[in-house]
This record gives sequence, C-alpha cells and structure tokens, in this order.
Amino acid sequence: MKFNKELNHSASHVMAMAVLKLWPDTKLGFGPPTEEGFYYDFKFSKPLVEKDLLKIEKQMQKIVANNYVMRKMDETFRYDYSCQPYKKELINEFQKENKHITFYSIYDPNSDKDLFVDLCIGGHIDKIKEIKYFKVLSLAGSYWRGDSNNDQLTRIYATAWETKEDLDEYLNLLVERKERDHRKLGKEMNLFMFDSLSGQGFPIWLEDGMKIRNRIMKEILLLDSKYNFCEVSTPIVGEKHLYEISGHWQHYKDDMFKPIDCDNEKLVLRPMTCPHHVLIYKSQRRSYRELPIRYSEQSPLFRYEKSGALTGMERVRSMLLTEGHLFVRHDQIVKEFKHCYKMINEALEKFNIKIDYVSLSLRDPKNKDKFFDDDKMWNKAEDDLRKVLDELGVTYQEKIGEAAFYGPKIDIQIKTVLGHEITMSTLQLDFLLPKKFELEYVNSSNEIETPIMIHRGLIGTYERFLAILLEQTKGNLPFWLAPKQITIIPINNENHLQFCEEIYHILKNNNFYVEIDDRNERINKKIRDAQTSKTKIQIVIGDQEVLSKELSLRFYGTEKIMKVNFDNLLDYLLELRNEKK
Amino acid sequence: MKFNKELNHSASHVMAMAVLKLWPDTKLGFGPPTEEGFYYDFKFSKPLVEKDLLKIEKQMQKIVANNYVMRKMDETFRYDYSCQPYKKELINEFQKENKHITFYSIYDPNSDKDLFVDLCIGGHIDKIKEIKYFKVLSLAGSYWRGDSNNDQLTRIYATAWETKEDLDEYLNLLVERKERDHRKLGKEMNLFMFDSLSGQGFPIWLEDGMKIRNRIMKEILLLDSKYNFCEVSTPIVGEKHLYEISGHWQHYKDDMFKPIDCDNEKLVLRPMTCPHHVLIYKSQRRSYRELPIRYSEQSPLFRYEKSGALTGMERVRSMLLTEGHLFVRHDQIVKEFKHCYKMINEALEKFNIKIDYVSLSLRDPKNKDKFFDDDKMWNKAEDDLRKVLDELGVTYQEKIGEAAFYGPKIDIQIKTVLGHEITMSTLQLDFLLPKKFELEYVNSSNEIETPIMIHRGLIGTYERFLAILLEQTKGNLPFWLAPKQITIIPINNENHLQFCEEIYHILKNNNFYVEIDDRNERINKKIRDAQTSKTKIQIVIGDQEVLSKELSLRFYGTEKIMKVNFDNLLDYLLELRNEKK
Repeated sequence: MKFNKELNHSASHVMAMAVLKLWPDTKLGFGPPTEEGFYYDFKFSKPLVEKDLLKIEKQMQKIVANNYVMRKMDETFRYDYSCQPYKKELINEFQKENKHITFYSIYDPNSDKDLFVDLCIGGHIDKIKEIKYFKVLSLAGSYWRGDSNNDQLTRIYATAWETKEDLDEYLNLLVERKERDHRKLGKEMNLFMFDSLSGQGFPIWLEDGMKIRNRIMKEILLLDSKYNFCEVSTPIVGEKHLYEISGHWQHYKDDMFKPIDCDNEKLVLRPMTCPHHVLIYKSQRRSYRELPIRYSEQSPLFRYEKSGALTGMERVRSMLLTEGHLFVRHDQIVKEFKHCYKMINEALEKFNIKIDYVSLSLRDPKNKDKFFDDDKMWNKAEDDLRKVLDELGVTYQEKIGEAAFYGPKIDIQIKTVLGHEITMSTLQLDFLLPKKFELEYVNSSNEIETPIMIHRGLIGTYERFLAILLEQTKGNLPFWLAPKQITIIPINNENHLQFCEEIYHILKNNNFYVEIDDRNERINKKIRDAQTSKTKIQIVIGDQEVLSKELSLRFYGTEKIMKVNFDNLLDYLLELRNEKK
Repeated sequence: MKFNKELNHSASHVMAMAVLKLWPDTKLGFGPPTEEGFYYDFKFSKPLVEKDLLKIEKQMQKIVANNYVMRKMDETFRYDYSCQPYKKELINEFQKENKHITFYSIYDPNSDKDLFVDLCIGGHIDKIKEIKYFKVLSLAGSYWRGDSNNDQLTRIYATAWETKEDLDEYLNLLVERKERDHRKLGKEMNLFMFDSLSGQGFPIWLEDGMKIRNRIMKEILLLDSKYNFCEVSTPIVGEKHLYEISGHWQHYKDDMFKPIDCDNEKLVLRPMTCPHHVLIYKSQRRSYRELPIRYSEQSPLFRYEKSGALTGMERVRSMLLTEGHLFVRHDQIVKEFKHCYKMINEALEKFNIKIDYVSLSLRDPKNKDKFFDDDKMWNKAEDDLRKVLDELGVTYQEKIGEAAFYGPKIDIQIKTVLGHEITMSTLQLDFLLPKKFELEYVNSSNEIETPIMIHRGLIGTYERFLAILLEQTKGNLPFWLAPKQITIIPINNENHLQFCEEIYHILKNNNFYVEIDDRNERINKKIRDAQTSKTKIQIVIGDQEVLSKELSLRFYGTEKIMKVNFDNLLDYLLELRNEKK
C-alpha cells in the first residue's frame, strides 16, 4: 500500500473543480494532501448532506475521464479572486510579505483552456487520468485557518490510490480502525468514561476497566518482585523547586499544570516520578554494597495536554505509569541493563506483544553540544549498551543522534495492528540527574562517588496499554484478561437456579469474573446479550445439565461448544486462566 | 487515673514560684493546666539545661512541704509588674478592654504573707500540701503568645496527680507512648518518610511500608469482591463546579487546596470521592433492577491541614482512603446497612481490631433546623437503622443530635492501646447528595425516583491505619502483615549459602518477604540485626542443618525456637501466614 502524495494533491484540485461545477458559488479554503489522503475546506451556500458526497465523487470521475493535465501557470497569470474571499486574503498576505506566489491549473490540451486554477505551491502528478482509484469519505466541520473565531467551513475528506487493490486495502483499514477504535470499544464494554466535572482528559476507570487494569497490574507487580524491584509510593505532587533542580521546570513547563500555592510551597502535579525516587535514594547515606537499588512504582502522573489533543485513553491528562528507576555503580551498568531487558521481554511475552525492532539511540559525535558533556562517560556507556544487546543476541538498529540529552538508551519498538509504530518499552541511562541532585555513595575505598540512574519503562501507561490491547483484540481479550469471563444462564429460574448458584460460588471464590443471568428473558436473548457484552464463556443450565452435571461451554466469537463435567470445571477454568493465552 | 485540673493549675503556680526562687530575674509568661498536666512559659536570663528540671522539682517539693494555701487576692490589690513585662502587657490590655482582673496568691498563714502572686482567673485547690505527686517532665521552645514574631520563651512541662499510683501510671503511659509512637517506629522500621521537596505532609511510602499497605489492601479488595462492591478508579481532581453542586466548596473550602487553573476549568485536589461516584451513577439511565449499586475505591484524597497540625501519618495532607458508596432504593436501606455492617465486622476481625462501642447518631428533634428538612425521611431512616442494629443483636448508644446534616449514621468506635477513642468505621445515610445531583432511577411502575446514598467507611485511611497498627503492636506486626518475615543466616557462606538459597527461592516464589544475610559479619551480630529490624523469623543454617535438614526457627521477641523439617517448612509458613494472627 504505497501512498502517493502528488496523486492526492492533484485529486484535491479535482475535488474542488467538481464542487465548483456542482455549486458554482462555493468559496474555497485550503485543500492539502494528508498522510493518507486529502481534504478540502469549503464554504457552501447551503449545507451539504451525506449523499452529496456521492455526487461529488461522480463529478470527479467525469473530470478524470478526460486527458487533462496539471500545469503550473506562468508568471504573468493574474488570478481572479473576485468570488474567492479566502484565496484573496491569502494572496494579499503573500504579496505584503513579498512571497513568491504560484498557481496550478487543470488544463485541457484539446481546448487549450485552464479549467480550474488554484493558488498552490505545487507537488502534482502530470496527468489527471492517473487519478483512477479514489473515494470521497466523509465531511466534518472546520474553521477558516483552523481558528474558531473565523468562518465555519465544511471539510470534505477523501483519498486516492495508484491501484484498486491499494484503495480497497485502505478502505478496509478504515473499517478495521473503526471496529478497533478503543474509544468505541471502551464505551460498548463499559470500561472507562470521562466527565468534564472531574476534569477533561482525566479518565474514570469503570468496574470492568478496573478488572483489566488489576489483572495487568498483578502481573507487573509479580515481575517487579521477581526482578527485585522495591515497590514504593510517592506523592503525586512535587514542590516547584524539585523540578527546578531536576530541570523539568525549565524545559518541560508547558506540559505541566500550574502550581498550587500552599503556605510557602508551590505544589505541582507531577509529570514524572524520577525526582521523587531520587529523594528516597538521597534520604540515607548509601554504600556501594547497597547498589543496585531498584525502585518501582505504579505512578499517577499528570501532563497538561491541549484539550484538542485529548484522545480517549491514548492522550490523557492524568495517567498511571509502571515506572522503574535504578541507581547503579559504573561497573553494574551492563548487568542491570541485561536484568531489565530480560524483564521487558518477559512482560511483553505475557501480554503477547511482538517486538518489531530494537533501537539503540546514541549521541551524534558531530553534534556533541546537543548532549551532556562527558566524552569518557558517553564512550563507555555506549559500548556498555552495545555489549548488552550483543551478549543477549538481540539484533538492533543504531540511531545516531537520537540519544537523550542525559545519556544513551535502548527502545523496544512495536507495530500496532493498525500499522502505527510506537515505543513500548525503554531503558535509558542517565548521567545527569544524579549530578543535579548531588547523589552519592561510598565506594569500597571509602570515597564518595556519584551513582548512575537507569529509567525503566515497561508497558507505558495503563491507559495507553488498554487502548493497545483493545485495538489488538477488537475487545475480545484473552480469557485471563477479560472482565466478563463466565455467564451462567438458567433455562428457568425455578428448576435450575440452584445449580447455577452452586457453580457461581465455586467460581467466584476462585476470583473468576462470573455472573448469573436470572432475568426473566428468553434464553436466546440472554445468549445474545452475553455475546454482545463479549463474555468469554456462557454456560446454559437446563434439566439435562442439572441431571447429568455435564456442562456445555460456549465460547465467545466461535461456534465452539465444549463439554466439561461439573467436577472438572474449576480445574479446566483455572488452567485456562493460567495459560494466559 | 483521675486527672485533677485544679491540682495541676495550682502546681503550675508552685512551679513559677520555684523558678523565681532559683532564678529571680526570670520573666513569666502563661502557665495553664492542660489535659494531662500543666506547663509554664518562662524567659530565662540564661539558657536552661535538662538537669535544671530536677532543681525545679526539688524546689517545688520544698514549697509544697509547707502549709501554704491558694487564695484569691482582694479587689484592692495592686500587682507590681515592674519586673514582669509579659504580665504587664496582659494587664494593660485587660484594663483597656475593661475586663475584670483577678490575682491568686500562694499564701503562708503562719507569716500572713503572700509568697507568690500571679495574674489568674482561678480554678485552684485550697491547700498546696495536696500537691504531693508530681513530675517536671521536659522543656521545649515556645513564643510569647504562640506568635513566632514575639520573644522566644522556654516552656516547662510537668504533671501532678492525686496519688502515687496515678503518677506512676501516667509516667508509664508516657514511656509506652514513646515506645509506641508510630513516627519513631516508622523511622526505625523504614516504613515511610517525608520530604518537603515533595510536599509537606505528603507521605512517601517506602518499600517495607508498601508491603504492609499491600497486604492490608489485598484483604480489603477481597472483601470488596466478596460483598459485591464494584471497584472503580476516579480522578484525583474535581472541577470546582462539582464541589459547588455537592456543597463542599461552600462548607469545606478551608480544608481544600486552592484550584489549578487549566483552560476554562478550575481543578481542585479532591477532599472526598462521593461526588465522583455520583458522576458514574449519573452517566447512565438506571433502573430499580440495577439497585443497589455499590462502588468501592482505594481513593487518594487531599486535605489542606495547617502545617503545625501535621503529625506523622496520623495527620497528613495526602491520604489513601478505602471508600465505599452505595446507591439504594428506600426499601433496601435495612438490607444494605446490614450487608455493610457485616463487612465492617469481618474487616475489623481480620486486623484484630476490637470494637469499643457502636453509636447510632440521630437528629435532635428539638433542633430540626440543624438537619436536612424531611420529617418523614428522618423518621423512617432512624427506625431503619435501629432495626438494623437490633436485628443484628448489636448493643449501641443512641446519640441525639450527632447525626450528619444529611442523615443518620452508625459509627464503630474503638479505643486505641494508648486510650484514645476514635471512629474506625462508619455507615452514613445521605438523603441530600442524590437530590443535589438530581440522581434518578426508574421504579417498577416506570416512574422516576431519587435513590439514597450510603457512605461506607471501613478502616479509614491507610496512613492512619498503619499508625494504629504500629501503636498497637509496637511494630511487632503479626507474621502475615510483617514486611520482614524471614531472614536466613548462613554460618559461613562457602558451605551453607547454597542451602540458604534453596530455601530462599522456595519462599520467595510463594511471595514471602524473605532475605539471606550473607554479609561478612559474625553470626551473633546478624541475629541481633534481624531482631532490631523486627524480622519475625530467623533461620540459621550451619553444617548440622545442611546435613539433617532440620531447621531451627527463632521468633522475634521471644526465646522460642521451633524445629521444622525443610520438607515441611513451606506448609508451616503458609499456614502461619493464612492464620492471620
């Protein structure tokens, strides 16, 4: 699926031409290509409706059936903007700023006529005929120049591809995306909600969302214990001075909330936990024997995002991060990076997350002033990290110049099911923070030394991770993570409820998420409802089941029915849960 | 142990007289009785040292050996305040305000002389001789009139009792208090810390503190699940308007932090969770069939306490509360109160907390304007709550006029080991909040009704609960709650470490808090260190143990040694942990 930007750019001109043909008094705004298609902003004299999109598409097809070409107008061309106020505004501005102004035309060589001329900096295909496979997708409200003080416009989204296969594939992807949209799934499954009265972008985890979060957290805490991290819990605020020392205040202030005045303190909702863990380290005199010290925390964090940027659980203002910070000696870097790398691997395996590739981000030796100044440290640390990956047999990509200011790092990249690349886990070396906070330990020769920090990111925030899991599974989570695991359905309450309750109590006592559906509804409706709510297993109980104790387990999303005897049910389900598949 | 306020008040005069005898140029401040003794503030011309306290005590003993009496000076008396500037300041003020001024004297009938006269409103015993059993306790810095802009004074604390037994008992209590002070224990055991850089009064839970908190929370979450509460997690802020609707903003503002301006929102660190749970309730249309709805949350809360009021984990600005809120129909009040009462009972039993008494707080019918106005509701609700306690066979005290504005409540009172009465758990009916938020459900006749809320407090905040547990156990927590459960000590690493590690891994895999002490220290030092850190069980491994696999378990705080075979160790410890004793 190769995206062709020029093709889409030209298609946007075609769309504008088609619109003017259909509704000549339409005013034109911007019409750029995007990453996956293009859009054009219009001011229509009467509101557009959904079915007009098909009209536009048909009109476009008529246009591209001709042998028209895209051509740049020559310097002498003067655009007639008498009916196009937005274009006029732009041209006037460009003239004032002495900018070079260019126009592109859809030109008919047969008649030697410019059929549609638009203000444009170019980047087009030659022949309009190449625009064969396109689709007008949707409309949305917008504002002239994106400013809500300006005129309201109608934005029409569309997309164009080189082949029919590409177009079909892309349209399928759109369907997929909608189906996998975590906001839609989260709502359907009742996992989370937002309410402006408790803060825009501050998620409320509902019961079933919490069940998923708790299961994930349990695994993370077990790993933290296995890998000998010390779990701590630190305040959700920091005094402003804390972030002045750490440097966040100077470099990160725009992403932080405003401080709360409290007596002589200025308390800020924290954007990171590293300085807090530093305070614990610093609260005692440390000896080389104590290192490495590994702190972990399920950290509530806060980030001021513009309200327009908030996106379901993907971009929030308040989040819960699985954090880890290590304080290590220089001679422990390799060992501890390996330790953490193995932990990351184990975590991702648990949740069935496939690594796309591993990157090692290094300093750019030609651009040293962009990085913390200590040649010796950088050289050793970069060698150390290479050694870690080599010795673990990991193939990786070196990325020159992509290290953090404070040290080199290893990132674990994944590709989401919808094709986005994201950093799932990270291990970052930090020379700087220990220096800023003047951290110390006493080495074996009784001298003072500065430790090194490692920042360990495992699965990111619970909010983002939930979004990824939902996207990946379309909400059909594996049994062990599913918030609705078993529904028991009595055929009639009078005769069958007792046996249902017997099953229920056994499963509930073993911490399964189990329910009895004893509503006065028809059996088919109950089964359908259990499917709709994505309940993993349904067990219908009737005379036969009460008598024989042979249970039929129906699995969500399959036709599969499995017979399990009542006596074996618990073992079977325990095993299913332990499998974590 | 009966405290006599008059006795202590007179003793404070005796102390002032003694001090002037010893250091005649001392300036006198205030000298009131307190709840457990008295103090006097002095300005000494040279700094007092600890051993001067004994001098004062001896001087006091000389004074009370005489047949002096306390007497009120007659109206004609004029106090000579030429050497007492603080008294002079007070007298001048009182005169300006036309206040009645009185003086009391320690008077010698033999010589007919007033030996020591002090500005005082009275409340004394007659005969000084009755002050037999007293103790000068400690000194501390203070300020004239408690204002740090004024002169710095020296405060001397003392206490007086009617009998020697009472005095001894009180002095023992002071020792007890010191030993049981959760701040001291928390520091020794490394459970929590504070750092002004992460906010005064915002606790940092350290590794071992978190281990305790996690064990407690695990039990609470199991109970929540058993009693069918839905665990949710809601934002730690509320928009100011949320608290305007709930009424907290009007009535509780002084205890809240200042809002954070964020775009058009004013976000406040939340002081309570009820409004958040209301938002969840309100997010969907509710039917009578759904009720009762029970939400629970491990809620971070924030309260602005004056910095002077902050006390270890007992009074903090940020806390974690086990919260529960129920939304019920009128006909469900009795059942749900019983449900919750049983839950409270089970929770307190788990942690070995004894109920002192149960109180039922009712409206004062003579003072109805202090309570939400709905006679019918109050009458029914109060009857309901009586019925709950009667049917459960609970004896209780009715407290007229102590209900909340919004409804009657049941409080579970306990007495701490140091004799303080506190409310451990609470169940409060709330007519008001559902009305304020216009909550609704559709009843069986398809009409709209307003649900009732129940606030359920279980064990209060984790911070306070930790303080109580430490106080109660002197830090010697029961095995299942202890953050240091087992230390394995090899006699020498070369021969015995391997077996230690074998034991270690088995226990660690079963989530015991276990450590190996493989330091190069003498065996006795290691045993002593394990005792100091309050490790519950120590297992020393030498040749004999490696050979025979018979292990000797030493228990903290006892001389008890128990033999357990290696093969039975895990079972033994699992049982010990499950016992929760």
